[in-house]
Amino acid sequence: MKNRIITISREFGSGGRTIGKQVAGTLGIPCYDSELLQKIAEKSGFHQAYIKEAGEYAPGGFLSSAFSHCGTGPNNADYLWQIQYQLITELAEKGPCVIVGRCADYILRDTARCLRVFIHADMAFRAERIVKVYGEREESPQQRLKDKDKRRAAYHRFYTDMKWGHAQNYDITLNSGTLGIDTCVELICRLYQNDPQGADDLA
Amino acid sequence: MKNRIITISREFGSGGRTIGKQVAGTLGIPCYDSELLQKIAEKSGFHQAYIKEAGEYAPGGFLSSAFSHCGTGPNNADYLWQIQYQLITELAEKGPCVIVGRCADYILRDTARCLRVFIHADMAFRAERIVKVYGEREESPQQRLKDKDKRRAAYHRFYTDMKWGHAQNYDITLNSGTLGIDTCVELICRLYQNDPQGADDLA
Repeated sequence: MKNRIITISREFGSGGRTIGKQVAGTLGIPCYDSELLQKIAEKSGFHQAYIKEAGEYAPGGFLSSAFSHCGTGPNNADYLWQIQYQLITELAEKGPCVIVGRCADYILRDTARCLRVFIHADMAFRAERIVKVYGEREESPQQRLKDKDKRRAAYHRFYTDMKWGHAQNYDITLNSGTLGIDTCVELICRLYQNDPQGADDLA
Repeated sequence: MKNRIITISREFGSGGRTIGKQVAGTLGIPCYDSELLQKIAEKSGFHQAYIKEAGEYAPGGFLSSAFSHCGTGPNNADYLWQIQYQLITELAEKGPCVIVGRCADYILRDTARCLRVFIHADMAFRAERIVKVYGEREESPQQRLKDKDKRRAAYHRFYTDMKWGHAQNYDITLNSGTLGIDTCVELICRLYQNDPQGADDLA
């Protein structure tokens, strides 16, 4: 448990990914998100866009029908989960880093000292933000948010058996809508830097 | 909405009350907790110890049987809720302050600018703390914690229809067990002081 890792779970559109990148930039440590997807893709042979989708589908039940190749036994999503588990464990062993999403908090629960962060914001803030960042779509931003939240929560619940967004599962949860992205970045960096054991980990 | 209020909800034994008092001390603003109980007592004519108990019982269902004087219509708990609602609203109008518990976040949702905080910690941390702070009892500390958490959650849910401890209901939630009481105090003070609109409110 040498390295200290910042894991960021987040609601879609809350700016969690942006916050992760800015925190990593300030602390001078790597941030794994799309980079992690690429690594999973390389290792699994699956296409990156497919992995991105599968990462938000919980196997079992209607959500997974497109990804299950048969009714019983491990499916593609389970296979990806294994690769993801192994990769995240390896990355955390390499050195301090920020990992956005992918249940890293759960995966590293026994093998790394994690600062477990959850970022959320209200619907209005996130709706405005996803239109700005990802552009307009046929579906309303509200519908897109509901759909994404539902998938992420189901995925998280399936693999971790923990309730997504429950304060008790994290060291800190932040409302990026009311506090602002910059304040979230500042608080997370401060917590990381103030950790007496964590100081040696900084790159 | 002139004044800025810090509302602190907390799990029993997490140090939320201590954190509230220290935050208020640092910021030079009042903290209402046992003081608030006393005010409610004075206004309602009920005994203070009774009010403390009733504040954690949700009317309706088995929890409230001891406090209901009849099957229908408002009961004592409802009457106390009305007084509490009015008192908290008045206190928030008087000036910036910290209010611990009593659903203040919900009560002030439309009438004050609140920094909504939730403090929690894991069972082991809280069990050790309640024995240190409140002494040994016949019941195990774990049982006392479970019982208190259940009552607080039911009370909160009954009057606010919001789920207690859901990250989405707060601006910030903090794990006092992993972060430490002092760090929680520091972060809350920093958030309050950094608010550009809040600076004028400081006493």
